[in-house]
Amino acid sequence: MTRVTVWNEFRHEREEERVREQYPEGIHGTIREFLAEAGFGVETATLDEPEHGLTEERLAETDVLLWWGHAAHDEVRDDVVDRVIERVLDGMGFLALHSAHYSKPFKRLLGTSCSLTWREAGERERLWVVEPGHPIADGLPESFTVPDAEMYGERFDIPAPDDLVLLSWFEGGEVFRSGCCYRRGAGKLFYFRPGHETYPIYRQAEVQRVIENAVRWAAPGGGPTPSFENRTEPLEALSDE
Amino acid sequence: MTRVTVWNEFRHEREEERVREQYPEGIHGTIREFLAEAGFGVETATLDEPEHGLTEERLAETDVLLWWGHAAHDEVRDDVVDRVIERVLDGMGFLALHSAHYSKPFKRLLGTSCSLTWREAGERERLWVVEPGHPIADGLPESFTVPDAEMYGERFDIPAPDDLVLLSWFEGGEVFRSGCCYRRGAGKLFYFRPGHETYPIYRQAEVQRVIENAVRWAAPGGGPTPSFENRTEPLEALSDE
Amino acid sequence: MTRVTVWNEFRHEREEERVREQYPEGIHGTIREFLAEAGFGVETATLDEPEHGLTEERLAETDVLLWWGHAAHDEVRDDVVDRVIERVLDGMGFLALHSAHYSKPFKRLLGTSCSLTWREAGERERLWVVEPGHPIADGLPESFTVPDAEMYGERFDIPAPDDLVLLSWFEGGEVFRSGCCYRRGAGKLFYFRPGHETYPIYRQAEVQRVIENAVRWAAPGGGPTPSFENRTEPLEALSDE
Amino acid sequence: MTRVTVWNEFRHEREEERVREQYPEGIHGTIREFLAEAGFGVETATLDEPEHGLTEERLAETDVLLWWGHAAHDEVRDDVVDRVIERVLDGMGFLALHSAHYSKPFKRLLGTSCSLTWREAGERERLWVVEPGHPIADGLPESFTVPDAEMYGERFDIPAPDDLVLLSWFEGGEVFRSGCCYRRGAGKLFYFRPGHETYPIYRQAEVQRVIENAVRWAAPGGGPTPSFENRTEPLEALSDE
Repeated sequence: MTRVTVWNEFRHEREEERVREQYPEGIHGTIREFLAEAGFGVETATLDEPEHGLTEERLAETDVLLWWGHAAHDEVRDDVVDRVIERVLDGMGFLALHSAHYSKPFKRLLGTSCSLTWREAGERERLWVVEPGHPIADGLPESFTVPDAEMYGERFDIPAPDDLVLLSWFEGGEVFRSGCCYRRGAGKLFYFRPGHETYPIYRQAEVQRVIENAVRWAAPGGGPTPSFENRTEPLEALSDE
Repeated sequence: MTRVTVWNEFRHEREEERVREQYPEGIHGTIREFLAEAGFGVETATLDEPEHGLTEERLAETDVLLWWGHAAHDEVRDDVVDRVIERVLDGMGFLALHSAHYSKPFKRLLGTSCSLTWREAGERERLWVVEPGHPIADGLPESFTVPDAEMYGERFDIPAPDDLVLLSWFEGGEVFRSGCCYRRGAGKLFYFRPGHETYPIYRQAEVQRVIENAVRWAAPGGGPTPSFENRTEPLEALSDE
Repeated sequence: MTRVTVWNEFRHEREEERVREQYPEGIHGTIREFLAEAGFGVETATLDEPEHGLTEERLAETDVLLWWGHAAHDEVRDDVVDRVIERVLDGMGFLALHSAHYSKPFKRLLGTSCSLTWREAGERERLWVVEPGHPIADGLPESFTVPDAEMYGERFDIPAPDDLVLLSWFEGGEVFRSGCCYRRGAGKLFYFRPGHETYPIYRQAEVQRVIENAVRWAAPGGGPTPSFENRTEPLEALSDE
Repeated sequence: MTRVTVWNEFRHEREEERVREQYPEGIHGTIREFLAEAGFGVETATLDEPEHGLTEERLAETDVLLWWGHAAHDEVRDDVVDRVIERVLDGMGFLALHSAHYSKPFKRLLGTSCSLTWREAGERERLWVVEPGHPIADGLPESFTVPDAEMYGERFDIPAPDDLVLLSWFEGGEVFRSGCCYRRGAGKLFYFRPGHETYPIYRQAEVQRVIENAVRWAAPGGGPTPSFENRTEPLEALSDE
């Protein structure tokens, strides 16, 4: 059973009434619920827990880490970020949701600013599957709509994704690479754009399906552990001279 | 259960004693055996059967098609190739083994000459896993050796692979991109270099493991079927002018 | 000086009054004009010339071939297509414009159906630069608008581009990968979506700029010509056994 | 004229006699010489200069920065690294040479450990051009040899390159992705493996040619500067609800 940890900043839900109404148990609570129903073993962790809930033990028992943050990216301790990145390079999957494009682990794993343009106008977003053969597209329709979305627009300052699965159309004129796959070390990363603290986006079936698919896709494999070493002894005989 | 069809030219085994000794039931027989043991449902098809054994029915019931050909690529009927390609674009996986780099379906799916340099000297090949997080690397060591191999050397005239999983080193001085993944339509393709009619390469555990992993990876997903159509009705209202 | 040949089906302009009004000298005439002004050496060729104007000599003297076709793709002779493809693999650049997504050379070089969804409603298209560091983006604004466009929508059944430079937004709700780079053999390919026989799109400054940039990018380089051969002599000594 | 700055750690040459013999004016001196002969404007900078020679002014006047470091990566100040990265994302080219795979700017731009396996045995390396149509392959032979090289072997823990141009074969049995292109922000990166402080590798014609080609390829373009902003005003009218 794939073991998932859902990490949430968990500030908006405690501080703003309209967010609490959408996600009374926190965004992590909602995500935990549908992932548990999908058959995953799910734990949660939040910013204000000791070590942000991401202890060595918790990470060692995590196959795929989901990350939701927005207003307090800077409060995440660098040593915890180091720990997360080390685990990703070692094989742990990492899903960055919505505003987690600006989270420390995501930015450090990608190496770019991860900047974008945005607009909070509750406009319509339509997501198109551009790679229907990709496992993250399983069970999705050709396109689906998020009725009230915060717009994220290109240029999205990311490295070109290894696989581009979803593209977003926005009512106000923008497009966005909304479902982006990367490999880093032995780990797999997926960025998924939809989601917001004041819209019920994580209750939408297609959005949940994408996240479930991405967890399956990002789960660690059983490939070899590379030896990074001074291999003084050649594998094949060298010529005399 | 993933349904596999192993296609083999099946001429060398009938015409040359030393090939028959290596593969008394044909290369397809050996591959069928280890794939069946790995839990797949496996059928075979060969060049000299009616329609090369690749009838509409056979292909409709195939999730992943393996292809081994060498001396008789030109004898494969174009209408059967059309049928294979249509199925790949529709989601069927396709594994091209060794000299199948020059097979009609592979060349047509890639669009290039698929040429390379070669040498038959029974030299040592060492395969290196360059993408340890890829599912096709599951269970493999960091590198493994094929003791007696036909050399294939770069430049290999293929499009840059979507994922490059394996690189080969050859005793005589060449390198080769030996494990190459592509998406075409809804289908997944994998080219795997090792294999030869007079060496027992398909009996080697690591080689079998790669092929098993690739079958799993290339099995069709459940993504949407795109509508390629004249969509006269816009999804969103157009402005008046 | 980069030598360009602009190939045009050149039927609409002769048969339909409203197309002739847009492009009195043919689409190829308009493209020739602005490319010549940009400093390229430009010739043209059309479907109804002998060998479609694409003789061995013409192709041998072409660095970059532009292709516009729409209603008569099937009338292009296969031997001429073979010739074009051979030159591309040998290093000639190839630009497929708009409905040339369905041209024989483009489909054969990509290996997929190149299908898409479309709508002729004269709606607004907005093109976004997603890779501002790419040479094809030189001199472009962050986004630009084509006021009256035929919509092309995803799923566009192409292999994932090696570089994705432009994305289109359409008023009616669709998105499209509108500027796609590929390498095939030693040649470079660029697909560019905008363009239509009844809209003055090839007179638009940004569209002309993209085409000029793409010609520069796709011009042949001076890399090595691979030897595809039976290299019986190893480059390095083989071990005795 | 493309303006190049060659950065060198410049410790080995001052501390070790055998290195000084190879590079009496420092590795940066040798590289400066052949790049100046190739027509570039070249400055140098070294670790022990104030701000490592990489002041705001120097970087503002640099189109492409070359980086050679080995034993003192950790002594490079983080604020200078920040400055370098900001310039790369803004369009400056960056070439990481040999042991610069472990330099701070390279590791931060790629996001991975950039680890590898190595052996100092003065063995033969053969570099193969796998992408002959790439500008970095201009003027190169199909393959070339570095007679005495330090081995670098896979797994090289990097993200899959956007373009893979060169592969290395080593006498002792290893392979390596030796010429790797990336885009980060508006900037282009190239990693080039050959080079060592005690071998005359930077005096070799093919090695110099690769570096010259890479400088041309990595020079900044003229694409748009993205606006990363809160675009409160939609570009297109939103529906009422």
